[in-house]
Amino acid sequence: MTGFAPSSAEVHRNTQLIQESYFAFKAQGLRLDLTRGKPSPAQLDLSAGMLALPGAKGFVAQGATDCRNYGGLQGLIDARRLFCEMMGAPPEQVVVANNSSLALMHDTVMFALLKGTCDSVAPWSQSTGTAFLCPVPGYDRHFKICEDYGIRMIPVGLGEDGPDMEQVERLVADDASIKGMWCVPKYSNPTGTVYSADVIERLAAMKTAAGDFRLFWDNAYAVHHLTEERLEIANILELCARHGHANRAYVFASTSKMTLAGAGLALFAASKENVKWLLARMAPQTIGPDKLNQLRHVQFLKDTAGIEKLMDRHRALIAPKFQTAQEIFETRLQGVDGVRWSKPSGGYFITLEAPKGRARQSVTLAKEAGIELTPAGATYPHGNDPEDRVLRIAPTYVELAEVAKAAEGVALSVLMAAKNGVGER
Amino acid sequence: MTGFAPSSAEVHRNTQLIQESYFAFKAQGLRLDLTRGKPSPAQLDLSAGMLALPGAKGFVAQGATDCRNYGGLQGLIDARRLFCEMMGAPPEQVVVANNSSLALMHDTVMFALLKGTCDSVAPWSQSTGTAFLCPVPGYDRHFKICEDYGIRMIPVGLGEDGPDMEQVERLVADDASIKGMWCVPKYSNPTGTVYSADVIERLAAMKTAAGDFRLFWDNAYAVHHLTEERLEIANILELCARHGHANRAYVFASTSKMTLAGAGLALFAASKENVKWLLARMAPQTIGPDKLNQLRHVQFLKDTAGIEKLMDRHRALIAPKFQTAQEIFETRLQGVDGVRWSKPSGGYFITLEAPKGRARQSVTLAKEAGIELTPAGATYPHGNDPEDRVLRIAPTYVELAEVAKAAEGVALSVLMAAKNGVGER
Repeated sequence: MTGFAPSSAEVHRNTQLIQESYFAFKAQGLRLDLTRGKPSPAQLDLSAGMLALPGAKGFVAQGATDCRNYGGLQGLIDARRLFCEMMGAPPEQVVVANNSSLALMHDTVMFALLKGTCDSVAPWSQSTGTAFLCPVPGYDRHFKICEDYGIRMIPVGLGEDGPDMEQVERLVADDASIKGMWCVPKYSNPTGTVYSADVIERLAAMKTAAGDFRLFWDNAYAVHHLTEERLEIANILELCARHGHANRAYVFASTSKMTLAGAGLALFAASKENVKWLLARMAPQTIGPDKLNQLRHVQFLKDTAGIEKLMDRHRALIAPKFQTAQEIFETRLQGVDGVRWSKPSGGYFITLEAPKGRARQSVTLAKEAGIELTPAGATYPHGNDPEDRVLRIAPTYVELAEVAKAAEGVALSVLMAAKNGVGER
Repeated sequence: MTGFAPSSAEVHRNTQLIQESYFAFKAQGLRLDLTRGKPSPAQLDLSAGMLALPGAKGFVAQGATDCRNYGGLQGLIDARRLFCEMMGAPPEQVVVANNSSLALMHDTVMFALLKGTCDSVAPWSQSTGTAFLCPVPGYDRHFKICEDYGIRMIPVGLGEDGPDMEQVERLVADDASIKGMWCVPKYSNPTGTVYSADVIERLAAMKTAAGDFRLFWDNAYAVHHLTEERLEIANILELCARHGHANRAYVFASTSKMTLAGAGLALFAASKENVKWLLARMAPQTIGPDKLNQLRHVQFLKDTAGIEKLMDRHRALIAPKFQTAQEIFETRLQGVDGVRWSKPSGGYFITLEAPKGRARQSVTLAKEAGIELTPAGATYPHGNDPEDRVLRIAPTYVELAEVAKAAEGVALSVLMAAKNGVGER
């Protein structure tokens, strides 16, 4: 389902036709933005009901908590209950914080750098050369955190069913400076990869040279399905505990792509010891999160069924956009040498692979044709895609009617870049 | 106005009468909490109008910004304009972030530790023994940040018009490890001290051994007056710039005690270079703040006049509580040896000084009588009040009718502790 469309050699194209099509496209003077995984205004409208919540009299949560006042470091119990199924942990092992999960991940890394985790013998910043494993292609903002704090990034391959586990197991077993690994286990950004049960179990079971190794388990797309199947993955917290590494995983998620992108909640789940550690780390930072926004979410989403219903409505809006892009790519790119693309069953992105060495040029050509793409290389540490192949396509924000045009423009840009490459060879 | 009531030796009290009064008080079995500077429910009710904002259709800010979506690292321009007068800086030098200013101060310290300020030659964590000056008594949560990250705290005296500047000037001139200083320049927590124009100018002008020395200027009570006078203090940013130290001050404030304590906005103002630095530091941490909450504040507060009107209504609710506590203290404690208290014209606290060595005992006695006070020592680094004198009284949260009782209980507890002291000597 996730996989890549096979390339087929029997399809040939006429260079002149491609050029004519590209310049005709460019002549339309369109301005379309496929850079970021942003929800569209129509998606945000699905949560319009939240904008007048909690209302003047509805500010009291479970346990007579006045959500307007200070306090409640771990987040409202109502909110922790609401999300505990999604997080795969009981409410006492869930922390609900302000927007966004990125901030929570960043701060968790900072806390580990300055103070160490609950299993560390010293702060990470005091050991020489802290390193993270980075499945590639991956999420640029994960890599940015590492880059910013001088954490060495070790790219590992991301296959059909998750990271290359032989590579991962070998690296973490040998190198005690490897303290962390970024994982987007479901509908991964940007490939749509879903980690298999076997991969997840191996991540939980593997031996690590670092006693305080952590999986940064960014389950950003936990409920963001593009098909009718509400796909579930193995529970990393349970598996880590079963294999004697209860503290190994920090699980993150967010409501930013469920309710309101800029005003969501960050979610964290982990072992009791990790939660205790995080709360102790957060105690000097904050007296408590914005509980009114948590209450707003509780009132609006209500329960797991409420979350599913809302996500179904998102799917109804965005699945046709993915479908449209897929159709255009099939029409224009099927069988082109070195070109393939992912067919995600969830998440926010399509990965489109240009022929080797042609991604940057494709982005430039697309830009000249009025289509803004994420910079080539952005899905690799330090922006360095060694094969210069990967393009990240974010089709959610533009209107459905424009997705076809945008995908057409992208396809033509890739074809132009590919032909240029052929010309050069 | 801020000063301490003079002690008078001619007043004598009857030990037996005090004991009788204390035990009679205790027998009432009250449960009152004077620990934290929390607004009361009635104060929070003043912002009830915010709870249904922005409303389903009001989510667009200046520049057609859809506040529901991602982005806008520096905060809404509407919000930066609203608060720029309060912050004493133009909107381009203001950052508006999520709740709360504590988090922003914490993160600023973390950023400086891990990356250094814009004037640092190295991250603070890489130099040996980073130290902060801490005017005492001061805000416990400032000290907690230092304690947590191993920043050495050097207490400096806080007098009638601010920190002891001779001490401050001598210390910062000599010791390059002194990188920061906590300041609550207006209606200081917990003494109510207002820094004089002279003190503020000397802080701006003084020579510091550390080239990257920073004033952490926590103007938490900028508009939190207890009298009709809207007292203004000197503009630290302007003065620093005038004395050639444009980057010296980080100015913080918050709406937590203006609108909703748990759902306020954090505010930051500084030089252009500092703002650029902070935004660069925040970029890996967040895509942007909760703009809907910023819009909610803009819609509700509207302008400086709106802020003043709201703060007048707060004053109408809390000034009588301060007045009541003052009256009780005058009746019960006036002239008692070694006892004095502050008479703040703004802010959230009264500092009550017990006789030397009697603060802890006073807190214990108050607790036994049903009144929870902030632990003695909390207003000093590491909880260590060397003279064991300072009690912090937070009269805002309890009902007006209960303030008299609570103050009575506190006064009796101090008297009991004082008499015990006399007995021991």
